[in-house]
Amino acid sequence: MEASAMAMPWLDMAATALFAVSGALAAAQMRKTLVTFAFFAVATGLGGGTLRDLLIGAPVFWMHRSVPIAICLVSAVVVWCMPRRIWPVQAMEWFDGAGLAAYSVFGAAKALQWGIPPLPAAMMGVVTACMGGIFRDMLAGVPSIVLRPELYVTAAAAAAVSHVGLLALGVERSLAMVVAFAIGLGLRGAAIAWQLGLPAYRR
Amino acid sequence: MEASAMAMPWLDMAATALFAVSGALAAAQMRKTLVTFAFFAVATGLGGGTLRDLLIGAPVFWMHRSVPIAICLVSAVVVWCMPRRIWPVQAMEWFDGAGLAAYSVFGAAKALQWGIPPLPAAMMGVVTACMGGIFRDMLAGVPSIVLRPELYVTAAAAAAVSHVGLLALGVERSLAMVVAFAIGLGLRGAAIAWQLGLPAYRR
Amino acid sequence: MEASAMAMPWLDMAATALFAVSGALAAAQMRKTLVTFAFFAVATGLGGGTLRDLLIGAPVFWMHRSVPIAICLVSAVVVWCMPRRIWPVQAMEWFDGAGLAAYSVFGAAKALQWGIPPLPAAMMGVVTACMGGIFRDMLAGVPSIVLRPELYVTAAAAAAVSHVGLLALGVERSLAMVVAFAIGLGLRGAAIAWQLGLPAYRR
Repeated sequence: MEASAMAMPWLDMAATALFAVSGALAAAQMRKTLVTFAFFAVATGLGGGTLRDLLIGAPVFWMHRSVPIAICLVSAVVVWCMPRRIWPVQAMEWFDGAGLAAYSVFGAAKALQWGIPPLPAAMMGVVTACMGGIFRDMLAGVPSIVLRPELYVTAAAAAAVSHVGLLALGVERSLAMVVAFAIGLGLRGAAIAWQLGLPAYRR
Repeated sequence: MEASAMAMPWLDMAATALFAVSGALAAAQMRKTLVTFAFFAVATGLGGGTLRDLLIGAPVFWMHRSVPIAICLVSAVVVWCMPRRIWPVQAMEWFDGAGLAAYSVFGAAKALQWGIPPLPAAMMGVVTACMGGIFRDMLAGVPSIVLRPELYVTAAAAAAVSHVGLLALGVERSLAMVVAFAIGLGLRGAAIAWQLGLPAYRR
Repeated sequence: MEASAMAMPWLDMAATALFAVSGALAAAQMRKTLVTFAFFAVATGLGGGTLRDLLIGAPVFWMHRSVPIAICLVSAVVVWCMPRRIWPVQAMEWFDGAGLAAYSVFGAAKALQWGIPPLPAAMMGVVTACMGGIFRDMLAGVPSIVLRPELYVTAAAAAAVSHVGLLALGVERSLAMVVAFAIGLGLRGAAIAWQLGLPAYRR
């Protein structure tokens, strides 16, 4: 088994936990109850991968094992038990960025494995990475991340497209994953560090 | 055939009607047209079970028979034809609570029948019971029920978890259904009667 | 192969482009970035058909070929490159009406082909035609089209129900499509031309 195949379940669980924490923190910011924390953690942590699996026709990944839900519920309890100020905003954005890049690569890779052609597969990377946050924002009733000019969906798209593109160029799978992840995280990191955004429509 | 299996289709239809009425009443409160009534009744009455079936990989329950949609459309017309004040708020909340408890137990039971393990199966109970109301609130643009401190999702979770837990302890299926239903309705009823809620996050 | 079967892929692509443009225009109205344009174009152009395919248990139509996503992305770029005033509001509404009628007929026809009975099949026509616009409005955070008194969902329902009904009466397939399309577009067009709407609930 190659290294990337061995690392993938761990990356997947790490990304799930990162997104679950970001969901629970949204509930904390709104001063909600523990049950709302759990709901937000589950929707944010599992939402993107769930939509991906439904779209590509795969069994939903958290239906036949209990670990992913358990990760989300534990994340909700951990956030609930801690004072809000221990979560530094900047650090959280970096963790979220790492989760975003990992999910983009992972989502595109899974779609390719299920025989989806390159363009829809890259789109599945974006769906996996971004839909959790979109569900969280919809439930919370705040303007969605896709509406902000900041590089976010763009970073996810860059990671997913690079992964699919590198594979098409014959690059070895593990290397294609690492490079695509680095591109996604680099772009998102640049956006966090220097408030990089795309130009808006002014015609 | 055991009694619970015979009662299940009837319970299911009763719960569908209750949720469909609650959807149509939301449209009535916003003074909308009959078509919006129908849309809300369908989304609220069928939404939760639809998401459950998609997630567990079962055929969507209202796709191969016409009764569930017909129940929702009739509910919309009935609500449309009646003056709003004949629907006592308190009574409606109790009906909704009964639907909530029934759907939680039913959703978890169906997931178990499809070979889903206990933790995701319990989650499917919550999804079945709560997502209809969430879709209704999203369409109406009002703050979702999952954001309120009131015991609602909690009551659904209690019913679903008790059903799954009692079965795991070897309790007979019909009994496990009745007890779990009673726990869910009891908890939700207590919340309605005494405005019981969960504590909010204040750290 | 009959004429309707030959025309269907073209009608489908035309309807996708029309809805994608309407999604991108929503992003233009909010002065968003090109990535948001693309996101709105994809969600609006593909959303309804995606939900239909998930519900009827068919493979999602844009998963195994790249054309539908490409149409949406190109639509987003085209709208982005053009000044907003070249899109006459009235003309856009007529294009949207044509897309609505085409998708209603097409969605109901596809459901029937997959063995769905008449009532749920007609509902699938409405879902195909209306959900793209609902997703667009949800993402944009504006009140959904289903909340407006204007004839919109009604026109979609009329087209879908006529198609299913005419087939049940033994009318030839191509004719049933053309007549149902004309009914849907006629109703929607009347609503656009004379601000036709349904009465609201006032009891």
